[in-house]
Amino acid sequence: MEIELERVKPAEIETRSFEIITEELGETGLSKLIPGTEPIVKRCIHTSADFDYAKNLRFSEGVVDKALNALRNGASIVTDTQMAKAGINKRKLAQFGGQVYCFMSDEDVAEKAKAMGTTRATASMEKAAEIKEPLIFAVGNAPTALVKLYELIQEKRLAPELIIGVPVGFVNVVQSKELILSLTDTPYIVAQGRKGGSNIAACICNALLYML
Amino acid sequence: MEIELERVKPAEIETRSFEIITEELGETGLSKLIPGTEPIVKRCIHTSADFDYAKNLRFSEGVVDKALNALRNGASIVTDTQMAKAGINKRKLAQFGGQVYCFMSDEDVAEKAKAMGTTRATASMEKAAEIKEPLIFAVGNAPTALVKLYELIQEKRLAPELIIGVPVGFVNVVQSKELILSLTDTPYIVAQGRKGGSNIAACICNALLYML
Repeated sequence: MEIELERVKPAEIETRSFEIITEELGETGLSKLIPGTEPIVKRCIHTSADFDYAKNLRFSEGVVDKALNALRNGASIVTDTQMAKAGINKRKLAQFGGQVYCFMSDEDVAEKAKAMGTTRATASMEKAAEIKEPLIFAVGNAPTALVKLYELIQEKRLAPELIIGVPVGFVNVVQSKELILSLTDTPYIVAQGRKGGSNIAACICNALLYML
Repeated sequence: MEIELERVKPAEIETRSFEIITEELGETGLSKLIPGTEPIVKRCIHTSADFDYAKNLRFSEGVVDKALNALRNGASIVTDTQMAKAGINKRKLAQFGGQVYCFMSDEDVAEKAKAMGTTRATASMEKAAEIKEPLIFAVGNAPTALVKLYELIQEKRLAPELIIGVPVGFVNVVQSKELILSLTDTPYIVAQGRKGGSNIAACICNALLYML
């Protein structure tokens, strides 16, 4: 085989990856990023090898500082998939007092969704709205979760510390993100367009945690 | 708000998504796919909203039939991330007798990796090679896992039923996939290039499971 592996020590792989991402973004690419958001954008590219994330991420005014404050104050994270829950650095989160909730596999959620003719994601956001703690929502899969969050916020039943709105897909994904982008008092990080995913939702949480 | 949501019933969202993917691939795109691989390619696009997967997936000769037979015969799946493990449909897999293994968080793996100066992914593939069952490997994160699988196969210490080689990233990812593509007797599904991820690894497993 003529395949040559780059000699990088295990502990240095991530550093080297971020160097390559920085190089490839170049000065032009980096200069277009909102100050303070660089570690988040780069980690999304690191997670996907997709440089579209240098262009499609939208950040509400001052969102990074607000998110870091929320995490520092022990905010918990609600996700819409077990995959995102698995990917979030729960040990790091716990150092500040937070935990990760995912209600998607809960029996009461399945029953409620069936009874209401909605998705389990919708029902699990309803369930999350009952939690009386500061909450960050990390939605990587279900646009219906974002739509429900929008409604809960309009109805003043919920005031999230942050919405990470990165569902992926083809049905109502674009629209659900536009709903979140229209909110004026809710801090958000949104991947505009169709792209996103549980991996992206988890990696944005981790990018924030690693900034602390 | 002028944002209009498409009215789709929860149970129909996935079907509608696949219709959109089929439409957008178009006849030209679809005609380029290897017969029998369509559900896998489409599910990767469904998971990522990234049409690159219509071009970058490589399938060894007859791999889909071989993989389905392995699953039918109770093959288990070894993954390199807890995220991929979380994403694989374990209930469906168990119907045929298989289970999902991920050794990345095991203490003996961490110790061995430290002692050997390798990654935990490398050490966890070594551990997997000790399992005396038919195995499918789903690698969505660590190129070092693929390199180790290549070595184990060369040393005749392992004969996987299938390697799903879809690590993502920038350091040795491309090369590690080329190593797998060079294997002549090992069935593989590989996302050539930098792209992939735990979500892609899980979705290829699920695409196969849903074909049974």
